[in-house]
Amino acid sequence: MTAYKIDHIGIAVVSIDDAVPVYRALGLEERHREEVPAQKVVTAFLPAGESRIELLEPTSEDSPVAKFLKKRGPGIHHVCFAVRDIDGAVSDLRQRGFRLINSQPALGADGKRIVFLHPDAGHGVLIELSEDAPEK
Amino acid sequence: MTAYKIDHIGIAVVSIDDAVPVYRALGLEERHREEVPAQKVVTAFLPAGESRIELLEPTSEDSPVAKFLKKRGPGIHHVCFAVRDIDGAVSDLRQRGFRLINSQPALGADGKRIVFLHPDAGHGVLIELSEDAPEK
Repeated sequence: MTAYKIDHIGIAVVSIDDAVPVYRALGLEERHREEVPAQKVVTAFLPAGESRIELLEPTSEDSPVAKFLKKRGPGIHHVCFAVRDIDGAVSDLRQRGFRLINSQPALGADGKRIVFLHPDAGHGVLIELSEDAPEK
Repeated sequence: MTAYKIDHIGIAVVSIDDAVPVYRALGLEERHREEVPAQKVVTAFLPAGESRIELLEPTSEDSPVAKFLKKRGPGIHHVCFAVRDIDGAVSDLRQRGFRLINSQPALGADGKRIVFLHPDAGHGVLIELSEDAPEK
């Protein structure tokens, strides 16, 4: 398995509209905003080179991101690496004994297939893997 | 000012040697290890596409990274964006009223010139900017 790039960095924010000006001051621009009902968040993506910043604003108090904000305040929530074969990656990580949050790839923003490693497996870092959706 | 890519993600770890196998399982390899006395850390860099993962292990209990570990445990510590003109970036951010931790660029790992925005300015995210060292 090869994580060939950082796909994005997920950042928990109270308000996307309040946080965007920080990244705009760095020269980044919002390109895409999307609600992900399964995660109870709205996501905004700002490309930076081959990667993106993903701002995550909760839509409900029981959203995992709302719980993160309550416990730790706004900040970096996870890092996502791009892989070409997510089923192979899942199988490989399982064989190596890494604990995953979801046992099968789920559908994330942008129609990508995603899995999360358990933060304990990542030494405190929530690591996501994503596989690009097939070209339409 | 344009942050043209994510230069690296800084991750606070108790032990680089213990944390490296996680990233090796993702297909990343350690390429460079260096002590940065000014920050009282040892850093290990693992390239991922055009970016890198930087593992940060404190060398002293009064290292900023040691304090981070004590307060929050291991996890993502900061994100660093690459800029082409860091003096221009500093001047631009100051004009926009963003608070910086160091008022002048300091020397970081790899001989790069770096500045940190204050986490309050980054809505809870510690944001670093770095300018590549001139080619030798």
